[in-house]
Amino acid sequence: MATEQHAELIKTLHDCAAACNHCFDACLQEDDVKMMAQCIRLDRECADICTYLEHAITRNSPFVAELAKACGAICEACAEECSKHEHDHCKKCAEACAKCAEACRNVA
Amino acid sequence: MATEQHAELIKTLHDCAAACNHCFDACLQEDDVKMMAQCIRLDRECADICTYLEHAITRNSPFVAELAKACGAICEACAEECSKHEHDHCKKCAEACAKCAEACRNVA
Amino acid sequence: MATEQHAELIKTLHDCAAACNHCFDACLQEDDVKMMAQCIRLDRECADICTYLEHAITRNSPFVAELAKACGAICEACAEECSKHEHDHCKKCAEACAKCAEACRNVA
Amino acid sequence: MATEQHAELIKTLHDCAAACNHCFDACLQEDDVKMMAQCIRLDRECADICTYLEHAITRNSPFVAELAKACGAICEACAEECSKHEHDHCKKCAEACAKCAEACRNVA
Repeated sequence: MATEQHAELIKTLHDCAAACNHCFDACLQEDDVKMMAQCIRLDRECADICTYLEHAITRNSPFVAELAKACGAICEACAEECSKHEHDHCKKCAEACAKCAEACRNVA
Repeated sequence: MATEQHAELIKTLHDCAAACNHCFDACLQEDDVKMMAQCIRLDRECADICTYLEHAITRNSPFVAELAKACGAICEACAEECSKHEHDHCKKCAEACAKCAEACRNVA
Repeated sequence: MATEQHAELIKTLHDCAAACNHCFDACLQEDDVKMMAQCIRLDRECADICTYLEHAITRNSPFVAELAKACGAICEACAEECSKHEHDHCKKCAEACAKCAEACRNVA
Repeated sequence: MATEQHAELIKTLHDCAAACNHCFDACLQEDDVKMMAQCIRLDRECADICTYLEHAITRNSPFVAELAKACGAICEACAEECSKHEHDHCKKCAEACAKCAEACRNVA
């Protein structure tokens, strides 16, 4: 079953989506929101696609590889943007995204 | 069929989601992003739930009324926030959200 | 933070979405698919809204209560349908949905 | 703006998602649901990703090409499955999916 085969990927996607959503929320509360605009945008993109892919895996979607390819590219872009910022939520998000990008590449 | 019965609601939800997503994108490109933080947050909430509900109606979901109740409350909050701002995208979004809030109340 | 405050709800929603998606997949592979038609429909509804709500909580959505109200009603309907069937995946799904319905009512 | 640049793709995705969701609903009401099991599965996959991509375009996502690549592959698979069946909803769905697959390939 897909859920068992991809148990680690599911956890990685889940942690990445949570980190991105937390970073989105925290960026909107920063003093300098303007500096975080691209981060806010990519956090939403990344949280959405990770959530989507996790959900697709658990329903045994036949398209995990195709979706993981897109997800990996989005995670990579979000990791790069988040790594430019010093906020703790950005650093944690960059780390979660980089890990998730690699996990996605492995199944793509 | 739900799609025919709810043809007008589907269009209203669709226009509202598009207006919210456009407002989200435009707010992130404003000079004063900080002032738009709550607008950005609510635009995402509202675009997401309108998209969700539209999608649910077309699959003949038995839960249109329950979802429309939540959607209407979110549209209302987004309309209120957007109406505080003078940007053209906010004004258009406020209008689309107010119209959608009413349409949702009618089916909830 | 919403994620910490709602840690248990997040887990309950996650388990419910996974159980519903697994039940959806398994129902489509049963010999008597016709008997499972309503279960397949409600599994999709329930997995989708649980995934949506979990995602909304982690982005600190101001609308957790409104969404939880709709989610609870959907979980309840899915629990009722799944409890009519003897398949192991249906029984597990009914249990996860009943638990999630109650968790949703507590925050709604 | 992405919404204007991709106006035709947005309409094509929207029509495809609606056709897939209608086919999903109609398949679940057929006499021989078992024969439609793969169609039901792919209708969900295809409706979900088309809805996702349409939503992503309207928020000016930087990842339209990556997502369109996955979406095109899913549309193609759904078109192929639906074209095996004689039901009117399957034929219309196959047509909408084939058109959408081509539109996705053009932006991927």
